Amino acid sequence: MEGKGPLGKQFDNVWQDTINGQKSWEIAENKMLEEAIKGAIEKAGLTPDQIAYLLAGDLLNQIISANFAARTMGIPFIGLYGACSTMALGMAVGSMLIDGGFAANVVSGTSSHHDTAERQYRLPTEQGGQRNMSAQWTVTGAGSVVLSQTGLGPRITSVTIGRVVDLGEKDANNMGAAMAPAVADTILNHFHDLQRGPQDYDLIVSGNLGWVGVELVKELLKRSNIELGEMFIDCGCLVYYPEQDVHAGASGCGCSAVVMASDIIPKINQGIFNRVLFIGSGALHSTTSTQQGESIPSIGHAVVIET
Amino acid sequence: MEGKGPLGKQFDNVWQDTINGQKSWEIAENKMLEEAIKGAIEKAGLTPDQIAYLLAGDLLNQIISANFAARTMGIPFIGLYGACSTMALGMAVGSMLIDGGFAANVVSGTSSHHDTAERQYRLPTEQGGQRNMSAQWTVTGAGSVVLSQTGLGPRITSVTIGRVVDLGEKDANNMGAAMAPAVADTILNHFHDLQRGPQDYDLIVSGNLGWVGVELVKELLKRSNIELGEMFIDCGCLVYYPEQDVHAGASGCGCSAVVMASDIIPKINQGIFNRVLFIGSGALHSTTSTQQGESIPSIGHAVVIET
Repeated sequence: MEGKGPLGKQFDNVWQDTINGQKSWEIAENKMLEEAIKGAIEKAGLTPDQIAYLLAGDLLNQIISANFAARTMGIPFIGLYGACSTMALGMAVGSMLIDGGFAANVVSGTSSHHDTAERQYRLPTEQGGQRNMSAQWTVTGAGSVVLSQTGLGPRITSVTIGRVVDLGEKDANNMGAAMAPAVADTILNHFHDLQRGPQDYDLIVSGNLGWVGVELVKELLKRSNIELGEMFIDCGCLVYYPEQDVHAGASGCGCSAVVMASDIIPKINQGIFNRVLFIGSGALHSTTSTQQGESIPSIGHAVVIET
Repeated sequence: MEGKGPLGKQFDNVWQDTINGQKSWEIAENKMLEEAIKGAIEKAGLTPDQIAYLLAGDLLNQIISANFAARTMGIPFIGLYGACSTMALGMAVGSMLIDGGFAANVVSGTSSHHDTAERQYRLPTEQGGQRNMSAQWTVTGAGSVVLSQTGLGPRITSVTIGRVVDLGEKDANNMGAAMAPAVADTILNHFHDLQRGPQDYDLIVSGNLGWVGVELVKELLKRSNIELGEMFIDCGCLVYYPEQDVHAGASGCGCSAVVMASDIIPKINQGIFNRVLFIGSGALHSTTSTQQGESIPSIGHAVVIET
């Protein structure tokens, strides 16, 4: 499905099915993340022993995909949990570790898998039930980036770690509505801290708000007199064609990972964009919290990437 | 149970039961973590708005206790997953963020709860089945530390982020055996990197190996001609009296959190110990990975604390 989407030709590798010869979807996801991390290290012209830290996480309970990938890689491992915001969180923390002088190179990666996520968070995949129009489709994909102290590629120049925001959304089939207030909060804090506005960026890209969340963020920011306009896009609206019928768009840790790694970062590298604000967002609920009637706490982490 | 153990009188607060008036054990754990984080900030003479980052995680799926605590606190939140190594991981990453100049103060905290962990990882708590002699008892407890750029308390002077090690242990009732190789690996790497040995420390304290894991670490290190001796202790052996019948000792994120915060760090502060090596350890499995027949990947993170 991802390979047949608008960015399909830009991915380094597309598997023909969601299990790729492994004995379970979970192992397939783990292998996919390993492939992405190894690929990023190789593309950077490095070997795993030149990488000081692996920062990774995923959606599965106890971030099992990341743990198993870390087992294979043998790189000192900082496990992160930020749900679908993990790509941004890993880039943010990784860049601070490098700037602080604690590493010459770090690798950050994340993955999600439609079938592992759905059966964990929502319903048995075999059920094939009708999905809400506000529901998003968890991307089966993994992406990874190497951050280095030196080099010629795009640079992370600032980060804004988000606060947890929860306006009371309880519908696990409407992640866009749950995450939008957290994304808006982080954008506002970022603009405030750096005394910037939308005009200071060529592109503002959110991680996986989907069509519902994007509209809500625009509306929330309008209340603070901020118009994001045409330069605001969302990774969740870029992975699938409308006729692929995923309803409100794409989501999952893999969503922003594959869009940033295959499309946005290469475009910054080519000078198509010069300064990009990337805000990864995550819905920090669990099945237990949903079953116990809790609302969905969400978070957004922002990373500025420049040529 | 923890209040009746050897360190009971040193805890800031002991609840009379495991639910403390909340509607579920999970909410109780969340509130316990909040109490610990708020308490640490208060004791440091700070307010939440003076804290740049909250680093937290726990054992529950999607680190839900930490997410909800972060929601209440409103502090920019870096979610970590390191299973029972989270206390050490949070202190390690937090200290690097401070040393890198990204924060004046950070707070790190973690929790575990016997009843939430058991029903998630193993068996329904109502079942009351007989436990293996190698099994450890998940501590119901939370602990938190504030790390600051300035001040008079003990300092973190170096950290060693661990690699995932997995020698094939599959028994979810023998965490000590699963974690011991990872702890030994981190101690060896730490000694190698800093050109140090046991003689350079007043105390080497592991997070939650329990009686089984402690013996295995000693045995593994003997193969590299390292004798840890009397100065090697384990938080998992300090929380309960033998007659409390917890079998192989204590475990859980809360185990090292309550021992470090209530006993070891105060003793460093008093000058009883001058240089302590703390190695938090975590078993990075999930119920899904166990059900799918996978072994238990484990990790150890080391932090050096000095007067």
